[in-house]
Amino acid sequence: MLTTATIDRVVRAALDEDAPWGDLTSESLIPADAVAEATLEAREPGVFSGGAVFTAAFRLCDPTLEVELLVADGDAFEQGATLATVRGPARALLTAERIGLNFVQRMSGIATLTARYVAEVAHTKARIADTRKTTPGLRAFERHAVRSGGGRNHRFSLSDAVMAKDNHLAVLTRGGLSVTDALRGAIAQLPHTTHVEVEVDRLDQIEPVLAARIGTIMLDNFSLEDLRTGVEQVGDRAIVEASGGVALDTIRAIAETGVDVISVGALTHSARALDLGLDIRIA
Amino acid sequence: MLTTATIDRVVRAALDEDAPWGDLTSESLIPADAVAEATLEAREPGVFSGGAVFTAAFRLCDPTLEVELLVADGDAFEQGATLATVRGPARALLTAERIGLNFVQRMSGIATLTARYVAEVAHTKARIADTRKTTPGLRAFERHAVRSGGGRNHRFSLSDAVMAKDNHLAVLTRGGLSVTDALRGAIAQLPHTTHVEVEVDRLDQIEPVLAARIGTIMLDNFSLEDLRTGVEQVGDRAIVEASGGVALDTIRAIAETGVDVISVGALTHSARALDLGLDIRIA
Amino acid sequence: MLTTATIDRVVRAALDEDAPWGDLTSESLIPADAVAEATLEAREPGVFSGGAVFTAAFRLCDPTLEVELLVADGDAFEQGATLATVRGPARALLTAERIGLNFVQRMSGIATLTARYVAEVAHTKARIADTRKTTPGLRAFERHAVRSGGGRNHRFSLSDAVMAKDNHLAVLTRGGLSVTDALRGAIAQLPHTTHVEVEVDRLDQIEPVLAARIGTIMLDNFSLEDLRTGVEQVGDRAIVEASGGVALDTIRAIAETGVDVISVGALTHSARALDLGLDIRIA
Amino acid sequence: MLTTATIDRVVRAALDEDAPWGDLTSESLIPADAVAEATLEAREPGVFSGGAVFTAAFRLCDPTLEVELLVADGDAFEQGATLATVRGPARALLTAERIGLNFVQRMSGIATLTARYVAEVAHTKARIADTRKTTPGLRAFERHAVRSGGGRNHRFSLSDAVMAKDNHLAVLTRGGLSVTDALRGAIAQLPHTTHVEVEVDRLDQIEPVLAARIGTIMLDNFSLEDLRTGVEQVGDRAIVEASGGVALDTIRAIAETGVDVISVGALTHSARALDLGLDIRIA
Amino acid sequence: MLTTATIDRVVRAALDEDAPWGDLTSESLIPADAVAEATLEAREPGVFSGGAVFTAAFRLCDPTLEVELLVADGDAFEQGATLATVRGPARALLTAERIGLNFVQRMSGIATLTARYVAEVAHTKARIADTRKTTPGLRAFERHAVRSGGGRNHRFSLSDAVMAKDNHLAVLTRGGLSVTDALRGAIAQLPHTTHVEVEVDRLDQIEPVLAARIGTIMLDNFSLEDLRTGVEQVGDRAIVEASGGVALDTIRAIAETGVDVISVGALTHSARALDLGLDIRIA
Amino acid sequence: MLTTATIDRVVRAALDEDAPWGDLTSESLIPADAVAEATLEAREPGVFSGGAVFTAAFRLCDPTLEVELLVADGDAFEQGATLATVRGPARALLTAERIGLNFVQRMSGIATLTARYVAEVAHTKARIADTRKTTPGLRAFERHAVRSGGGRNHRFSLSDAVMAKDNHLAVLTRGGLSVTDALRGAIAQLPHTTHVEVEVDRLDQIEPVLAARIGTIMLDNFSLEDLRTGVEQVGDRAIVEASGGVALDTIRAIAETGVDVISVGALTHSARALDLGLDIRIA
Repeated sequence: MLTTATIDRVVRAALDEDAPWGDLTSESLIPADAVAEATLEAREPGVFSGGAVFTAAFRLCDPTLEVELLVADGDAFEQGATLATVRGPARALLTAERIGLNFVQRMSGIATLTARYVAEVAHTKARIADTRKTTPGLRAFERHAVRSGGGRNHRFSLSDAVMAKDNHLAVLTRGGLSVTDALRGAIAQLPHTTHVEVEVDRLDQIEPVLAARIGTIMLDNFSLEDLRTGVEQVGDRAIVEASGGVALDTIRAIAETGVDVISVGALTHSARALDLGLDIRIA
Repeated sequence: MLTTATIDRVVRAALDEDAPWGDLTSESLIPADAVAEATLEAREPGVFSGGAVFTAAFRLCDPTLEVELLVADGDAFEQGATLATVRGPARALLTAERIGLNFVQRMSGIATLTARYVAEVAHTKARIADTRKTTPGLRAFERHAVRSGGGRNHRFSLSDAVMAKDNHLAVLTRGGLSVTDALRGAIAQLPHTTHVEVEVDRLDQIEPVLAARIGTIMLDNFSLEDLRTGVEQVGDRAIVEASGGVALDTIRAIAETGVDVISVGALTHSARALDLGLDIRIA
Repeated sequence: MLTTATIDRVVRAALDEDAPWGDLTSESLIPADAVAEATLEAREPGVFSGGAVFTAAFRLCDPTLEVELLVADGDAFEQGATLATVRGPARALLTAERIGLNFVQRMSGIATLTARYVAEVAHTKARIADTRKTTPGLRAFERHAVRSGGGRNHRFSLSDAVMAKDNHLAVLTRGGLSVTDALRGAIAQLPHTTHVEVEVDRLDQIEPVLAARIGTIMLDNFSLEDLRTGVEQVGDRAIVEASGGVALDTIRAIAETGVDVISVGALTHSARALDLGLDIRIA
Repeated sequence: MLTTATIDRVVRAALDEDAPWGDLTSESLIPADAVAEATLEAREPGVFSGGAVFTAAFRLCDPTLEVELLVADGDAFEQGATLATVRGPARALLTAERIGLNFVQRMSGIATLTARYVAEVAHTKARIADTRKTTPGLRAFERHAVRSGGGRNHRFSLSDAVMAKDNHLAVLTRGGLSVTDALRGAIAQLPHTTHVEVEVDRLDQIEPVLAARIGTIMLDNFSLEDLRTGVEQVGDRAIVEASGGVALDTIRAIAETGVDVISVGALTHSARALDLGLDIRIA
Repeated sequence: MLTTATIDRVVRAALDEDAPWGDLTSESLIPADAVAEATLEAREPGVFSGGAVFTAAFRLCDPTLEVELLVADGDAFEQGATLATVRGPARALLTAERIGLNFVQRMSGIATLTARYVAEVAHTKARIADTRKTTPGLRAFERHAVRSGGGRNHRFSLSDAVMAKDNHLAVLTRGGLSVTDALRGAIAQLPHTTHVEVEVDRLDQIEPVLAARIGTIMLDNFSLEDLRTGVEQVGDRAIVEASGGVALDTIRAIAETGVDVISVGALTHSARALDLGLDIRIA
Repeated sequence: MLTTATIDRVVRAALDEDAPWGDLTSESLIPADAVAEATLEAREPGVFSGGAVFTAAFRLCDPTLEVELLVADGDAFEQGATLATVRGPARALLTAERIGLNFVQRMSGIATLTARYVAEVAHTKARIADTRKTTPGLRAFERHAVRSGGGRNHRFSLSDAVMAKDNHLAVLTRGGLSVTDALRGAIAQLPHTTHVEVEVDRLDQIEPVLAARIGTIMLDNFSLEDLRTGVEQVGDRAIVEASGGVALDTIRAIAETGVDVISVGALTHSARALDLGLDIRIA
């Protein structure tokens, strides 16, 4: 649940972008006193996300527009389902239409894609996680959508968890320091609440990393066989995350290797907007 | 060309989102005085877009980071090409990496997809145009990317052109007014610089709309045969835009009907981020 | 109709500017529990504009202040008319008074001046249009005021229509390109919804410009006789806009030359604030 | 001198308003590599103001644009004088042109009008002051312009000085309190640095107000004779400000009554933009 | 009384800072439909300040949260007193808790400390004033809190009163100008509402400063004896402010020297947050 | 290391607050062409923090002001040490002085207090951590200051770690769920990078909490003896944090009980601004 302060900030900016000096079409074509009713219709099945944002789009265009949500974030729906209703001045309703749809289509698209990935791995213990590959400015909304789809969030930003990669380890160990000692030194400066995740490319990198008592080890671009070996090797000494080469047709096999988390950049960087439409009747 | 004021506003917000209180990873793992050099590499072929935004991401993280662009927006490149270099403090370079990449991948993804659509119709007079189905907050960047790909922009917002649809015409004509008179009345109130576009669903709607001397007639979800008939019927009395059912494998046939403009929501709402990577060497 | 998001953004900034840390006068002189009623009175006749902005000024100072508008934007009123009432806590009402007045005086001043220009040309087909010579930060409000006065808006910004002037044409044609070909080349890159207007200084520039099939030709600083000749020459091949030397005592003759649009920078850059006052009774 | 932080905030917003997604005209008509030189020319004589703001408009559009100011704020100039030069990329220069001009024309217009008022009263001790009737969002710039013209600023906002009017005094004294005691009570709660000014409508109101030891007494809409009497009566017990009915042809007589300050709302609410032009040569 | 516009701006930013993408704890641990009631309890005695800000913190997190204030700003309370109640969705209430508390603890801490200083000097005519040593971004709130505690505000910012110190006078008089003439020259350019205060370090600096007819003379770091001498010397020619070496155990003696104002930076820069707690019951 | 984008946003707002329409004092008293040099002097010993913020205050007031830092964040210094130099236009330097000082005094005050706490426990393994009790709007700066003093940060916000308290557990277990199962259920929905910390009030609460495999257990307001027992009981199954009753004279004993982390709200909510001064010489 984002605060009203956060939702309003983003939605205000979107309205300012899409109707900086009003809506020429509805103002020239629709009488000022016309009233409209609209329903948000599912043109394809999916998982809903973005109800509070959809509502804000209409309220911040004109506070007399009334939105009623018929489904909650996270609810699955069939093609043809009615998801929400909107009522009020026709001009304002038409002005806010695209912004409201844009957010809810995008967020429901992410939720729906996430749900497909989640379904593929439901028989395993693997969890589907997002990445930082989100749309600039919309990360909080998109991560919320991942949760609506049954996925789990990864770290939000560079400021709330450590993700050590090749580059970092290469620098740290250049002076002769071992990987283990290098990581221990870093951990000693971090907040105790900071989760430390380390990415490795080969099986032989696992032990020195684990020796530093990190939280998660990411096995990057491992073959299925190496993933299985890695999972066994790590045991319960750390969470195992798989990354790289993840797609809808590969994720099942990856999950069956026993990894704990599979991070999927596609959830946010490649999700298609869901086909939702607003059917508007002007009285 | 966006102003520095506009670019900086959006990029600052993205940095604040991705590193609100710094980058825990690079601060704990990279020495404060380490210097890095990076190259932006094409992991797949494409069309470049977003050079000024990529540059701003590094400058607004740390003004001592230096970016040199090796290609210009709109340039096509092969897989393996080096597109830009970045030099400066390693910590700051790593902090800005994802934001810089995120923008340039997204924008180049749009440019690349646009270029594919444009290539399909190059033998016709049809032009590929974007829609308002852009990412909230990033419309100016995404439309710039469409232009980098050889596409053309449609109206930017509700405030700068009229697009009359069923809903609007139904309301206007309810009182017995003809479509032609209704449109003429609307046009009479608009800025003389405002382009008026009207969407029709059937061939018999064309004449009354054209009688109002509008700028563009959009033939929405027409069969190829009806498109051809419509184009002939309109002649040079208006620009003809085709919309609906447009995809990479259908656009060629649509263009060959003789339409002037084909609007493609997918350019922005479904473009995949292009696979560009930053190869970083820390000295 | 501007969105609530847009109106609130501008009005909040104005309140922050005028009462950054409250209103010393009303806080030191008015009891905290005093209640006030105010009426917005016309000290001179005019045309009203800015009702929604006036209302927002009070609501954003204190949401318990209630504003009732007695006239709508665009309504003409006589000296002595009561235009609105405000009720609520006296301190807050006094704090918001100047901001509320400032906007409504400015906007009604523009509407009133516009209406005078419009009245001068009512017997002709000429329409009065504003320009980009608006107050930085208040363009959306000021253009709304022009519409309240019966005027029509010109392009809103550099981003939504083309206005080619001497400078541009000189550059374009420097390499030997004809004006016609230069303009055609430019038009070929623009959004199909972008209106192209070209400014000419002499009659002999008209033909090559029209040959490029532009939307509007602006005859800049033409004599009345040349305007008449120009109008005839253009015929219905483009909209004809007159500009330059326009004042209340010259516009009638300009309009009678048969031009379609007369743009008047004075509407916004030189309009006098209308004399409206708030009569306040503190209970 | 405003801080860079303040100037940039206002100018960025103006650029975002005027070129939200670039300048279609210069992008379609001017080659990307064209370079331009411009001079800011005085089309009429006046007093300059806004040099730093003019400079910021170009810098914030494109930091490679170079501005050189040839006059300082407050300098008087003749018609035909060159006031500044700008050099750099032609597209960006053309994009920033209107914003740069808009600010400097507006500010120099205020400075020039102020200087005319100041000249009228130069032989007296009266000083010309502005009021809060400024453009929302631009008060700091407009007050700076008043100073450039030799005027003096009044209080900036409701938060930095007290201005007691009829309304306030009526409330204060309703319970039987004398005006003197009411004012003393208010003064006792105010910051010791807060100047207290009280507006009176009649000569017999002067004594009770002065008895409260206030800073300035404003004689509102007094006849010239009453002004003279009032000035004599007040002596050096307070600053005397005249207000109401002030115009260029009345201010001399008002000043000659011996008042200390004359506040002139017209300085900011009715100043005409000065006719300055940018002569641009594109190389 | 700050405007809603001002309060909301600061509180929105605080919520965005503390819950940028929601509250992980309450979302994972509290059912979505849980309802909570909370009381704001005084864990120590004090003076209340910040009611409107406390209320805004909850409203801007979720507009369905209802806050009732049981005390007004400026009211003193005992340990154990209940100061306000909050009711509504449990998750949102817990999310806003810290921000609401943070502001009200900080503001009541300042009010309480101020009240202690004020009590020390109640038998004298001295008034306690704050300084510009406030928290960046929170000055309006902190100065409001000083007033809640019975203190008085000093100038708000560099823009609303003059405070001349050694540095300034040294520069002014370097060319041989006397302090008196230097100050007079400066005063002649200032708004007539601008209070001029001059800081002196020695008794012999008083006369030349007073000769310029300034508003307040600040005796900086004077001994008690010199303060007494200074007060006598100044008489009623200016307000006398004491500054430097002010603490709870020294202020009584300073006040008894007869000074008018004692400015205390500690009111805002060193006030301890008051111990107020929110007792929450989740239904 | 905060990004330039973040630092500038906060510092710009502070300058706008402190000099919204310039600095009346320096403008009226200091010649426009005067140049100044200043040194930042330590009036008491301490630990430095805020160099980048101090620098930004001057740069964003006037970009021609040059700041040179002589110490780095985290360096300890003696009374009398020179910490930085500033050079440039005297007026601008004086305008930015208070904002620059305000930040660096506040941040160095936090760093210095933190260092005192850290020194008390240096012989133990305990680490000193901050809390969310920071100044609204300045959390990133204040947490940076804690790190400068050798402390470690706790979670930044409600969005990046879980902290379960009485309230939460009471709700969770109300339906008959055990604490262990309740926590496990919550953990199952959280990002795998989210650290879960649980606060307990009594020793008998420890086992069920640890059984859920949480990251940190906070022993709140435990006696020293109970702390020792708790530490032993927890062993290496979780990080042990002590909270409550922490002060400079109690922390040593608390640390000697063997806890891993001691969180100290006082670091940020009660730190005194350090006495640093700017010695300014105007040439």
